[in-house]
Amino acid sequence: MTVPTIGVTAGDPGGIGPEVVVKALARPDALPAASFVLFADPRVIEAEEARLGLRLAFRVWRPDHDPEAGVFLSPVAGADGPPVPGRVSAPNGEASFRAFEAAVAEARAGRLEALVTAPISKAAWALAGHPFRGHTEYLAGLYSGAIMTFWSDRLKVALFTHHLPLREAVALVSGAALHDYLVALHRALGKAPGGPFRLLVAGLNPHAGEGGLLGREEVDEIGPAVRKAAAEGIPASGPFPPDTVFREAQGKADAVAVALYHDQGLIAFKLAAFATGVNVTLGLPFVRTSPDHGTAFDIAGKGIAEPRSMAEAIRLAAAFSATGS
Amino acid sequence: MTVPTIGVTAGDPGGIGPEVVVKALARPDALPAASFVLFADPRVIEAEEARLGLRLAFRVWRPDHDPEAGVFLSPVAGADGPPVPGRVSAPNGEASFRAFEAAVAEARAGRLEALVTAPISKAAWALAGHPFRGHTEYLAGLYSGAIMTFWSDRLKVALFTHHLPLREAVALVSGAALHDYLVALHRALGKAPGGPFRLLVAGLNPHAGEGGLLGREEVDEIGPAVRKAAAEGIPASGPFPPDTVFREAQGKADAVAVALYHDQGLIAFKLAAFATGVNVTLGLPFVRTSPDHGTAFDIAGKGIAEPRSMAEAIRLAAAFSATGS
Repeated sequence: MTVPTIGVTAGDPGGIGPEVVVKALARPDALPAASFVLFADPRVIEAEEARLGLRLAFRVWRPDHDPEAGVFLSPVAGADGPPVPGRVSAPNGEASFRAFEAAVAEARAGRLEALVTAPISKAAWALAGHPFRGHTEYLAGLYSGAIMTFWSDRLKVALFTHHLPLREAVALVSGAALHDYLVALHRALGKAPGGPFRLLVAGLNPHAGEGGLLGREEVDEIGPAVRKAAAEGIPASGPFPPDTVFREAQGKADAVAVALYHDQGLIAFKLAAFATGVNVTLGLPFVRTSPDHGTAFDIAGKGIAEPRSMAEAIRLAAAFSATGS
Repeated sequence: MTVPTIGVTAGDPGGIGPEVVVKALARPDALPAASFVLFADPRVIEAEEARLGLRLAFRVWRPDHDPEAGVFLSPVAGADGPPVPGRVSAPNGEASFRAFEAAVAEARAGRLEALVTAPISKAAWALAGHPFRGHTEYLAGLYSGAIMTFWSDRLKVALFTHHLPLREAVALVSGAALHDYLVALHRALGKAPGGPFRLLVAGLNPHAGEGGLLGREEVDEIGPAVRKAAAEGIPASGPFPPDTVFREAQGKADAVAVALYHDQGLIAFKLAAFATGVNVTLGLPFVRTSPDHGTAFDIAGKGIAEPRSMAEAIRLAAAFSATGS
């Protein structure tokens, strides 16, 4: 049986990334069959194993060998000295950036079907001279069609725009851009497990503008974009009132709610899918998933981090790989 | 024992308003002791009682008598002929408007401590020549300090602005206006059951602006307004990231999340408090509550409407009255 090759990065060595990665990968029976390739400083992983009393029994990855189920390591030089948990530092930022870069290079070269990334510290990246807001923004720099989506059993959300001031996000709602986005999202979702998916598009204004009384964007931009996409065979509908569309999409396996700005989607997602949410970047030649939490410096090094979202991110990456993403 | 006098309107006669009102008031043992005064066309209430097989056993209200626990009726002329369920009509709009106006007049005259309103149809009001967006907008015309809040056991939300295009709502976020709002909200909440309440103020931009990277409003307007209010002894904090502040406020009995625009608050509230939510207008000389649902024309007249949110609205009105609102 051919298994997919899935890259995994451990994120900031001072955060909970290494812990949730080791906890998740130490239970291979709970994971789909895949070749998991950890891009990390071996000392960080070994220290984490020792601390948690867990063993990954990893082998060194050989990209020229046929993929085999199990855990492999692709060593990346880390910071000097052991990582100090709970602290933002330039060496930790440099280490997590290097590991991510190495994994992305392998994915771009076609040697990974998917990439799972544990949380990094944007502040640490900045200290190390890598001024990206996060993994997604780095990838968006390489692939202009990157699409940010959020997955859970209860709710799936796609963001039309993400890290922008709300004022700018509102100004970017145009019919042409939204139509193109719906086309790209529909195409990217073709590779997603569990499809085909209906796209439920949120309005921008209260009550979806109430026929123009509470804003014109639904009448002038969003409605025409949705209708044009639908006429082209894309199962898109809306615009729906923002305060009910997420309830509507919730619990429906075949529905993806399209949010027009960051918080419209994320307020809903974080309430509906706490602790099991997975961040999925679509529109790349490979799929990238990550748990829906941050470095959690406050609990790093204590052994109490919950690996559930990371395990979900790994499972979802494998599911996307199985469907040929 | 003195009981509060609480006005109740039945909303649009073609919607589920009369049904949920009769269902809720027919179980006085499940309600707090109060004098409930129904402002309605007696024929509508009697028809609803007959249809549901329930009896309110109401007496005619006499405002000059001492308040007594039980259900009373203050007759308001209704439409000619029986209401047709499930349909928007000018006569129904006129009838529901007249009943609301009569109840508000009694509340303004100090003869009601609180007012509970079943849902009206804005379209029917418009057909009847009353171009208000709803109860709240009518009251805001009389009282410029009206504040729209949403209550449930799980989450409480106050809206800084409500029925405005998002673009305009963003433009209205100023430090001076927000400070004044926090002062007014804190004062109004002084009369609310279960207080004192902490005010958790949401940011406007993703991640609350990330120190200015994703928008300046948090740095220039919201932060200073919150700090000024806090310095004056108001338990306000923030701005918090919009996608986590509602999770933070959820389940905390003493927390009210302050949303800066309609959907920021309502996306969260409708996900967290489905079916039990109550809309509460504060900042008036009396309190006004209403169930968090609409006329539901699609199920009107079928006897299947759920009176839970209406019963909660009545209970909350009584609780506000008991604390001297």
